Amino acid sequence: MRNKPTFESEDDFIAWVKQLAVQKGRGLRLGIGDDAAIVKVPPGHELILTTDMSIEDVHFSIAIHPPQAVGHRALARSLSDIAAMGGTPKYALISLVLSKSTGRAWIKGFYQGLMGLARRFDVAIIGGDTAVAPGHTMVDIMVAGECPQGKALRRSGAKPGEQIFVSGRLGLSAFGLRVLRSPALRRKPGTTAALRAHLYPYPQCALGRYLSHKGLATALMDLSDGLSTDLMRLCDASKVGARVFADRIPSPALPDSADSLHLALHGGEDYQLLFTVSPGKVSRIPRRFGQLALTCIGEIQPAPGIQLITADGKLCALKPLGFDHFARG
Amino acid sequence: MRNKPTFESEDDFIAWVKQLAVQKGRGLRLGIGDDAAIVKVPPGHELILTTDMSIEDVHFSIAIHPPQAVGHRALARSLSDIAAMGGTPKYALISLVLSKSTGRAWIKGFYQGLMGLARRFDVAIIGGDTAVAPGHTMVDIMVAGECPQGKALRRSGAKPGEQIFVSGRLGLSAFGLRVLRSPALRRKPGTTAALRAHLYPYPQCALGRYLSHKGLATALMDLSDGLSTDLMRLCDASKVGARVFADRIPSPALPDSADSLHLALHGGEDYQLLFTVSPGKVSRIPRRFGQLALTCIGEIQPAPGIQLITADGKLCALKPLGFDHFARG
Repeated sequence: MRNKPTFESEDDFIAWVKQLAVQKGRGLRLGIGDDAAIVKVPPGHELILTTDMSIEDVHFSIAIHPPQAVGHRALARSLSDIAAMGGTPKYALISLVLSKSTGRAWIKGFYQGLMGLARRFDVAIIGGDTAVAPGHTMVDIMVAGECPQGKALRRSGAKPGEQIFVSGRLGLSAFGLRVLRSPALRRKPGTTAALRAHLYPYPQCALGRYLSHKGLATALMDLSDGLSTDLMRLCDASKVGARVFADRIPSPALPDSADSLHLALHGGEDYQLLFTVSPGKVSRIPRRFGQLALTCIGEIQPAPGIQLITADGKLCALKPLGFDHFARG
Repeated sequence: MRNKPTFESEDDFIAWVKQLAVQKGRGLRLGIGDDAAIVKVPPGHELILTTDMSIEDVHFSIAIHPPQAVGHRALARSLSDIAAMGGTPKYALISLVLSKSTGRAWIKGFYQGLMGLARRFDVAIIGGDTAVAPGHTMVDIMVAGECPQGKALRRSGAKPGEQIFVSGRLGLSAFGLRVLRSPALRRKPGTTAALRAHLYPYPQCALGRYLSHKGLATALMDLSDGLSTDLMRLCDASKVGARVFADRIPSPALPDSADSLHLALHGGEDYQLLFTVSPGKVSRIPRRFGQLALTCIGEIQPAPGIQLITADGKLCALKPLGFDHFARG
C-alpha cells in the first residue's frame, strides 16, 4: 500500500471513469465494468477496428501539452483512422498507463478532453485497462467504427491519371507545435489557428463518409505522419507513383515560403484526408466541404516514386521525411 | 537517424509483422497495412471487445520472463476475457512500445510466443500500433470475439443459493512466479506445472463457450487478479455475498498448507474461470471438462461480503487482497 496516487483502488478508478463516460448508443449491449464489452453491428454493415498510442515524450510533452489536449489528441488519432476508411466511429476502449507522479487534476483534464471529443462524435467509451507503472504516461485507444458493407475506402485503389486531393491546410499542426515551443512566436498573427490545429485536431469523419458513401474517391487515407511519408504509403499500396505541385499544396502562411512548404510536406499530425479521384469524377469534388477546403495537389503516375514540381518548374524527387518511429530516437 | 534499433523503418517493421501474422478468417475483410482493419460479424452474432496491457516491471520482468512467455501471456490475458464472456476470440490488434535497447532477438521471441497462441486459437492479427519510446517495454492487446446474440455471460447474474465453481488449480501461477524468482526451488517436484501455468497460461475459451451455449452458468468471469478480489467483483456486480470453504479450494500442493491456501486465494494470473450455477443445474456440471477439473468451492449468499470457512470450521471475513494497480507501486 505504498503508492496510492489519486484513487483508493482500481475499482474506484473504474467507477469514476464509468460515471464520466458516454455509454449509450444503439448497438451497445454492455459497456464498462465486466470482463469485456458487447456490441451489435447493424445488418449490412462491417466493423472497422483501429488502435493508436500516445506516449509521453514521443507524441506529447507534459510541459507543453495541457492534459485536455493530450486526451483530445489521443482519441482524435483513432477517430481519424476511421475517417480514413470512410466509416463512422462508434465505440472506444481506453488503455491508460499513469506514472506514479500523475495527479488527479491531470487525469481529470485528460478525460475532459477525451470525453468532450467522444461526445461530439457520439462515441461510447465501452472499456479499457489501467495501470500505474514506473516511467512515462501513455494511452492506447482502440476505436471500433461502422461502415455499410463493401463501402470502406482503402489506400490501395489509386490508378495512374487520377487526381490527388487533400483536405484543409497542411503543416498547421507542425507550426502549432513550433509556436508552443517558442512562446515568443505566440504574439504573431495567425498562430491561434495553428495552435488549435495542433492541440485540438478535428477528425474528418464527415468528409471520409461523404467520399465513401458517394463513391467519389478511389483511395483514401489520413495524413498523420506528413504528406511526403503518407503519400508514399498510398502509392506503395496502390503500386503507383505520384507527381505533386509545390505551389498547389495548401501550407501555413509564413514569411519564409520554403519553410512553409517544408512544414506542409513533412510535418505530421494534421489529420486531414488524402484521397484520389478518377478524372471522370473530379468535377464532382466541391472546392469546400463545409468550412474545409479540398485542394487538388497533383496526379497519380504509373512509375513508382514521388516527383515534386517546384514553383519555378523544377522537378525533384520527394523523399518521405515524415515521422517514423524506427528512424528517430 | 540516430537510433535504428532493429528495423530500417516503421514500414519495414510492419511488413515483418505482416508476414509473421496469421491473417485469415472467415469474417476478415482487411488486415494489417491500411489505416484500419475491417471485419464482418456473422448474422445473429454480437461482437465482444476487450483490451489488456502487459507492462515491463508491472506484469513481466525482462530478467525472468523469456520473450516467448511475455508474448504468450500478453495475448492470453485478452483471450481469457473473451472466455470469461463465453465468446470465441477472432481478431487481435497489437500495440507495442519498444524501449530503445530492445533487440531484434527479443522482438522475434515475443512475436513467436504471441503468434503461437494466436494460431492455436485461430485468432487473426489484424493491426496495431508500434513505437520506440524512452522507458519500459509494454504491449496492449485488443481482442475482438464473437458470441451468438444474447448468449454472453456477465458477472452480474449470480443469485443467493447458487453454487460457486472454479476451473483448474488456483495459485499455481503465483507459485510459478515464486519458483522463477528463486532458482533453488526449481529442483523440487511439482514446479514444472507451476512454471508452465505462470509462463504459458491457457485461456479457457472452450469451457466458457460450453457454459454459455448450454446455459449452465448464471454469472461468469475469469480469475486474473486473485480469487479474493475477483469473487468480490462478481458479488458486487450481482449485489450478493458469498461463502467459500477453504478445504474445497483447489490449491498448489505445498508443504505448508496455509501458504498454499494464501496463493490460491490471493495469487493472480491463473486465468481460470469462476462461475455460478443454479441448484437445479449443478448436477449437469461435470467434474472434469476435458483435462480441466471443475470444483464447487462454496455458495452465493444474500448478505454482502465474502465469508471463508476454514478447515477447522471457523468463519472469517475474506478481504480482497489480489492485485490492484492503485494499491501497489
